[in-house]
Amino acid sequence: MVDLNSLVHDIAAEMAAREERGTVASYIPELAGVDPAGFGIAVVGADGDTHVAGDGDTLFSIQSVSKVFTLTLALGKVGDALWQRVGREPSGNPFNSIVQLEYEKGIPRNPFINAGAIAVADAILAGHTPKVALGEILRFLHFVSDDESIHIDSAVARSEQATGFRNAALANYLRACGNLRNPVDLVLGVYFHHCAIAMSCRQLAMAGRYLAFGGRHPTAGGKVISSERAKRINALMLTCGHYDGSGDFAFRVGIPAKSGVGGGILAVVPGKASIAVWSPGLDAQGNSVLGSAALELVSRRMNWSIFGD
Amino acid sequence: MVDLNSLVHDIAAEMAAREERGTVASYIPELAGVDPAGFGIAVVGADGDTHVAGDGDTLFSIQSVSKVFTLTLALGKVGDALWQRVGREPSGNPFNSIVQLEYEKGIPRNPFINAGAIAVADAILAGHTPKVALGEILRFLHFVSDDESIHIDSAVARSEQATGFRNAALANYLRACGNLRNPVDLVLGVYFHHCAIAMSCRQLAMAGRYLAFGGRHPTAGGKVISSERAKRINALMLTCGHYDGSGDFAFRVGIPAKSGVGGGILAVVPGKASIAVWSPGLDAQGNSVLGSAALELVSRRMNWSIFGD
Amino acid sequence: MVDLNSLVHDIAAEMAAREERGTVASYIPELAGVDPAGFGIAVVGADGDTHVAGDGDTLFSIQSVSKVFTLTLALGKVGDALWQRVGREPSGNPFNSIVQLEYEKGIPRNPFINAGAIAVADAILAGHTPKVALGEILRFLHFVSDDESIHIDSAVARSEQATGFRNAALANYLRACGNLRNPVDLVLGVYFHHCAIAMSCRQLAMAGRYLAFGGRHPTAGGKVISSERAKRINALMLTCGHYDGSGDFAFRVGIPAKSGVGGGILAVVPGKASIAVWSPGLDAQGNSVLGSAALELVSRRMNWSIFGD
Amino acid sequence: MVDLNSLVHDIAAEMAAREERGTVASYIPELAGVDPAGFGIAVVGADGDTHVAGDGDTLFSIQSVSKVFTLTLALGKVGDALWQRVGREPSGNPFNSIVQLEYEKGIPRNPFINAGAIAVADAILAGHTPKVALGEILRFLHFVSDDESIHIDSAVARSEQATGFRNAALANYLRACGNLRNPVDLVLGVYFHHCAIAMSCRQLAMAGRYLAFGGRHPTAGGKVISSERAKRINALMLTCGHYDGSGDFAFRVGIPAKSGVGGGILAVVPGKASIAVWSPGLDAQGNSVLGSAALELVSRRMNWSIFGD
Repeated sequence: MVDLNSLVHDIAAEMAAREERGTVASYIPELAGVDPAGFGIAVVGADGDTHVAGDGDTLFSIQSVSKVFTLTLALGKVGDALWQRVGREPSGNPFNSIVQLEYEKGIPRNPFINAGAIAVADAILAGHTPKVALGEILRFLHFVSDDESIHIDSAVARSEQATGFRNAALANYLRACGNLRNPVDLVLGVYFHHCAIAMSCRQLAMAGRYLAFGGRHPTAGGKVISSERAKRINALMLTCGHYDGSGDFAFRVGIPAKSGVGGGILAVVPGKASIAVWSPGLDAQGNSVLGSAALELVSRRMNWSIFGD
Repeated sequence: MVDLNSLVHDIAAEMAAREERGTVASYIPELAGVDPAGFGIAVVGADGDTHVAGDGDTLFSIQSVSKVFTLTLALGKVGDALWQRVGREPSGNPFNSIVQLEYEKGIPRNPFINAGAIAVADAILAGHTPKVALGEILRFLHFVSDDESIHIDSAVARSEQATGFRNAALANYLRACGNLRNPVDLVLGVYFHHCAIAMSCRQLAMAGRYLAFGGRHPTAGGKVISSERAKRINALMLTCGHYDGSGDFAFRVGIPAKSGVGGGILAVVPGKASIAVWSPGLDAQGNSVLGSAALELVSRRMNWSIFGD
Repeated sequence: MVDLNSLVHDIAAEMAAREERGTVASYIPELAGVDPAGFGIAVVGADGDTHVAGDGDTLFSIQSVSKVFTLTLALGKVGDALWQRVGREPSGNPFNSIVQLEYEKGIPRNPFINAGAIAVADAILAGHTPKVALGEILRFLHFVSDDESIHIDSAVARSEQATGFRNAALANYLRACGNLRNPVDLVLGVYFHHCAIAMSCRQLAMAGRYLAFGGRHPTAGGKVISSERAKRINALMLTCGHYDGSGDFAFRVGIPAKSGVGGGILAVVPGKASIAVWSPGLDAQGNSVLGSAALELVSRRMNWSIFGD
Repeated sequence: MVDLNSLVHDIAAEMAAREERGTVASYIPELAGVDPAGFGIAVVGADGDTHVAGDGDTLFSIQSVSKVFTLTLALGKVGDALWQRVGREPSGNPFNSIVQLEYEKGIPRNPFINAGAIAVADAILAGHTPKVALGEILRFLHFVSDDESIHIDSAVARSEQATGFRNAALANYLRACGNLRNPVDLVLGVYFHHCAIAMSCRQLAMAGRYLAFGGRHPTAGGKVISSERAKRINALMLTCGHYDGSGDFAFRVGIPAKSGVGGGILAVVPGKASIAVWSPGLDAQGNSVLGSAALELVSRRMNWSIFGD
């Protein structure tokens, strides 16, 4: 087994040489303009040391990776009652979520598909203003990452909001089914803004430590969440974290992880490491091509699959 | 942490006291007639010792649990080419598989849904007679379980065949899409018969050792399959092993496992144990109520979730 | 064959005696409060005489019947180019339209399902204000019915708008697919208001004359639309006019007709009569129970089925 | 209005000059080998005279057009009880019927989609042998067409049977849902054979007379079916007769008609004519390109739309 520092630098070098890099998301100009050559990686090991390579300090739009943190927050607020509004099953739906929503009468299959994350945002909003809810989300991220510089990229949020008609359809549909309690516009405001949070791999790997290490906060001490809840969020990342490529990612990489269309992936090796990778080129399922490839290498070289040695 | 022998006896005692036991499968008389009071458990630990309690030596129809073994065999025969015919994604479909099959043009989403397992049976059949194919499946089971008494319950197989029109629909549909190479009747013959294999928890836990212990055969020595393949099969069990309750099982139990409508579940704790439980009462998703409950207790008491301590 | 005056009074009497009346729409208070005992009928024959019975002069919310008139207007504005944005096939979908919309990439199957009518409203809006568009719709109705008193029930429109999240979902989805050119809110404003038009059976039967009589305006003279277009709108009413009960209505009644959840139905017997019936109790498909029954009697007694004598 | 004899010859001449002819069905060699240049037309008017042009005496495989006759027969046998097993709504499903069948629990939406016609064949079989059932179907055709030479093309039937896995899937699914009472193989035998009946346009137009003329047999005298039933079958042809192109055909042509993938169409103008056209090239929905075009011309020139003058 290699040491983590060599690992991240080797992988960054190998990824730099890859030619197949996928396609950068193009639905808003802020994402479309990102340089496809970027690749970053950061690993925080069990000893708390952080190893960063490539563009591991470059900020990117975390997009759906934010859903891991809003889920954590919503569970803290409403507990298991959340599961009456959102399921825990993979969506398994190549033709996407609004169909599922109609069949299952407004209950999104899991908190990581867009409809589910919108319901989660509604649970966080809970009658407050979007500003209060977003402040809470950011404070949570500052706390778990030990980094108060993390912020929302407001240009991204604006673009999301200006073009997010499909998400508006989902939110209105949830509301029609009685599964949204706050005004549609306010919930969407929270959702679009938390997806627009900008982070680096270093920050993201730091933020994921509580999931990798039994719910504990490695530096502040004490628990962010119970170890039971950490395990469950990890299970959801494994089964639902990569859209309709979740099964394949589990098969190839074998590590709980959540991806976003900004090209970032947060991966959690229980007891061993919190890992963040980033590269903006995506595959057909919307997952980072080099990010997935890098995590597959990490899994093999460190023998970190949760499915066996 | 408790010792395994106490564990299995404690759990068998607790399960005997449970009142909520679900509903026994009723689509064929051989299953409908099974006593709902039954519960068995067997655990083979890393030291090779087997711990059995309750009705752990009672034979039951393994049904879909057999798909783990036919998948292993088919991968041995055709390798990764199998994945051109079968996907690796959770089906995520409450209204079942023939819909998915049509949308995805005859490619079953994974090898554990019926359509996928029928395609796997076709890969094993490969131009031979059903008798030859079934002989091969049984010999594989005898080998991995160190038990030559394992056999097919022919009354179950006959009943399955006489009533299996939905599976016949799936097989014909696969054939219409060019994803079945042998005659429909022969493939269904193999499928119905391997689902009708009768095993006890003890035999099933023995048979699962190669998946728990890196592909190795603990007693014969050597490898049944590579450790890489064992991990991948475990990943498939985790994401797809409990029909449309797979996400929930991962969330609550956190151990790769495959269930069958006979009430059996094979669970694999990488590096630590191969576990079989059985109780015929099923929940709405077709998974054993007491079997799932028992595995949840095992996961908690032994701290065996793959998603963290 | 009976004379029309006896016909309408006989039928009104028979409907008054019926006990099975269906269920009044309850999604907004203005509809929920309508007296289920109501039944009205009006027939305008080829000679231009109008025969009215029962509550044939009571105003009701025409709801989806308005889609016949907005379709006529939109075809007048954009011609057959409309068919690039909306299909002409029955929806045949018991689980409703948003599913279809996703499968067919934002092209509603026909102009009478909600999604299709929203696209039609968008074609009428065409950059103007909702007020201008609604003025145009009302002027058209005043013209074809020879009745300037027809107006929008603004209480109904407000209630529709306050609870119309499912339609907002459809509109946003259309916009996401590029099949809505005006702002979602403005299009919905037009849609909700034209559905809230209040008319009596007498007014509605008058308004339908142009469809019954080859596109001609019986009193003003000249053509409202070409006879070709009138035939085509009639064909759409026959195949798509009763939601997922269209086939059954064609089978039982055999007359082109468009129903609305307010309990009104406009029926067109080519060359013979324009008929309006109203009774607020609906069947499971959302069509007026007594309205359908009355039209079935009209069809039989007058031998007015378009499918034979 | 032109006389019928000029009409059929004019149209045959115009169709011969058309270049866009669609694609001949290719799923069995017997259909794939048909000359795409073929076009035939036959019209039987109210006076009983028959007008034939082009290849109007060439035999072709009537395929789904046969479903009109089996429906008539099944209604004669079981009456309206048939409608408990088969619906009367357009399928409206571009992705085909097995999906619908699953959603609606084994009740085909109408008797003209494959699943519905298989259920109809089951109602005709009714415990007899396929030979008896097929004899009954042929005798019915001989009677209504006054032509005892009509027969089954056994080469076509054999090919259908050898490749009809999708229909076998449907039949097995119906059986799984309890909507098939005879053995799957026997029902499919009847179905494949009645689809393989060979007829000319002349024979087909003769066979359709009872539907055009109020259920009467023009030469034998008396009723084949009641006029009520004739109207209802015509309504079903209008709403469901052209697969997922039924709405469009009603819109463009406005005449009840049933098409088949052999390129034949039977069209019924109530009180005026029974028409058969044939040309093997199909459009994307599986309907004859020239056949539809010819009927559109007939409708316009004769003013025969049922939706107005």
